[in-house]
Amino acid sequence: MQTARQWQLARRPQGAATAEDFALVEVTVPRPGPGQVVVRNTRLSVDPYMRGRMDDKPSYIAPFELHSPLEGAAVGVVTESRADGFKPGQVVEHFAGLREVSVLDAAAVSPVSLDGHEPETFLGPLGTTGFTAWLGTTEIAPVREGDTVFVTGAAGAVGGLAGQIARLRGAARVIGSASGAKVEYLVDELGYDAAFDYRGTDPAEELSRLAPDGLDMVFDNVGGPQLEAALGRLRLGARIALCGMASQYDGREPYGITNLFELTKQRATARGFIVSDHYDQLAQFREEVGGWLHDGRLSYRESVFEGIESVPEAFLGMLRSGAPTSGKVIVRLEG
Amino acid sequence: MQTARQWQLARRPQGAATAEDFALVEVTVPRPGPGQVVVRNTRLSVDPYMRGRMDDKPSYIAPFELHSPLEGAAVGVVTESRADGFKPGQVVEHFAGLREVSVLDAAAVSPVSLDGHEPETFLGPLGTTGFTAWLGTTEIAPVREGDTVFVTGAAGAVGGLAGQIARLRGAARVIGSASGAKVEYLVDELGYDAAFDYRGTDPAEELSRLAPDGLDMVFDNVGGPQLEAALGRLRLGARIALCGMASQYDGREPYGITNLFELTKQRATARGFIVSDHYDQLAQFREEVGGWLHDGRLSYRESVFEGIESVPEAFLGMLRSGAPTSGKVIVRLEG
Repeated sequence: MQTARQWQLARRPQGAATAEDFALVEVTVPRPGPGQVVVRNTRLSVDPYMRGRMDDKPSYIAPFELHSPLEGAAVGVVTESRADGFKPGQVVEHFAGLREVSVLDAAAVSPVSLDGHEPETFLGPLGTTGFTAWLGTTEIAPVREGDTVFVTGAAGAVGGLAGQIARLRGAARVIGSASGAKVEYLVDELGYDAAFDYRGTDPAEELSRLAPDGLDMVFDNVGGPQLEAALGRLRLGARIALCGMASQYDGREPYGITNLFELTKQRATARGFIVSDHYDQLAQFREEVGGWLHDGRLSYRESVFEGIESVPEAFLGMLRSGAPTSGKVIVRLEG
Repeated sequence: MQTARQWQLARRPQGAATAEDFALVEVTVPRPGPGQVVVRNTRLSVDPYMRGRMDDKPSYIAPFELHSPLEGAAVGVVTESRADGFKPGQVVEHFAGLREVSVLDAAAVSPVSLDGHEPETFLGPLGTTGFTAWLGTTEIAPVREGDTVFVTGAAGAVGGLAGQIARLRGAARVIGSASGAKVEYLVDELGYDAAFDYRGTDPAEELSRLAPDGLDMVFDNVGGPQLEAALGRLRLGARIALCGMASQYDGREPYGITNLFELTKQRATARGFIVSDHYDQLAQFREEVGGWLHDGRLSYRESVFEGIESVPEAFLGMLRSGAPTSGKVIVRLEG
């Protein structure tokens, strides 16, 4: 009987999540039923939105269940198939990650055509990370030629790509916020025109200095005071893609935004979105972004952790404000 | 030499506006130059947005200048014309109100075709008031068949019409907030399905009771806690028209909204708007709403004040939370 390890939710976080909220459990791998495939996972995605699923609150995605396996995007290799169209050795992607082995109905598994990309690329720039960045700048709050764009959490996996896609769409000026050394990374490696450290600064002052003529498009990953500062500098007809509110996750005190009236004054639009509503555009996204990757027009970073044991460290490090990680956080398992 | 009275801004309000901020001044009426017309105003519009212009803050419309005439929508009669296409006796509308006589370039004056409506109708349901209600429900956050709709400030001039237009567009359930006796007015006269008094209640609880399945469309005139409560009850794909934030005007303490992340969770859109961006749709609006008025399908109230002296009383009464006025506030001058 084959066994494999999986991360389970040991308890709901009290305030900020801690390592004690996770439990690594060895379970028996069930035999695949008809129409099922067995996948040995080789890359696991660790993403900020998972924090919300640890709480028992209604949200856009169901909470994780206590003492049940956690989930997330993963890439792996089929080791056994009882489903048409899947063969051992095939590379696939699915959303039943944070475990070594997943046994899944064929409908929950998609073949991956690597096309010269590394498997982890399908969790990063060609995965939901890149898809989120592409949707926000393309569909939700489309960047227009000549726009001044502000990306919050710009050194994160999504933010780093969002700023670069904004540029490829014709933005005249791209500004980002991050913390510590990641500020230079934005300008030196990702080609942002300007960036500021949101810690110990007043984001309203920083934006007034860096975007004196205001903002046409905002890609917001963090909410809170940075979103408020961005609202205070909108130009007429500005568009805001509300992607996430990392500053409000993990048991932090909710921040009250006092200047929503700026949306009225500037006839601006704020729109929330979730990638899962847009899978009909996945192929179009992968074709465009895959091309940019092949042409070397997109830079990105990965923070790679080794081994299933490292999941809580990877996850908690990513959530920390001023975290040392930048770019996409991935856990690599032996293939 | 003809003289006429006009209201000027005597000083900027300190906190809430008071009668001392206004000065009624008698001025000499200038002779019309070539291309100008002289209008004796017969109906003056008094609107909440004017409060913002009394402060010296950048907004979507320039602040009023100290010791200069106030402005607003008005209907009047041409008494003298040096412009092609205008003749004495003709009924016109313009935005140089809050005075007895306006001398204006022809480009700033539009002829009004009364078409059986009273002149004040062109400040109310067929004026910017009605146009605002129509745009919010039609263009900005379109009401769809079967929607549950929530209108804040629903007994106000705009809100009263917005709820009724939402119904005419196919809304299944229309809920409004108001204060005091105006709550019954919403249900009994305007055909709202349900209404609550926002004073002394928790708007989140009221909405949970009155809209158990959530809100598809929100027409927000007040901002603050009511907008926050509405955000907490959005359904997937909800649309919010941000029309005004009356709860935040008049020197009141700004309220911090803590749950903007609901826009992301519900993939909802909040869009601010100003009628002046949409004058290309004015004729379309007047045709549709004019038809509804002729067919008796829209109810509305006017609070009419008599004489130029009553402008501050009309204005300050309208701004007061729990004000006795409902519907459109108009000042009538002798024709």
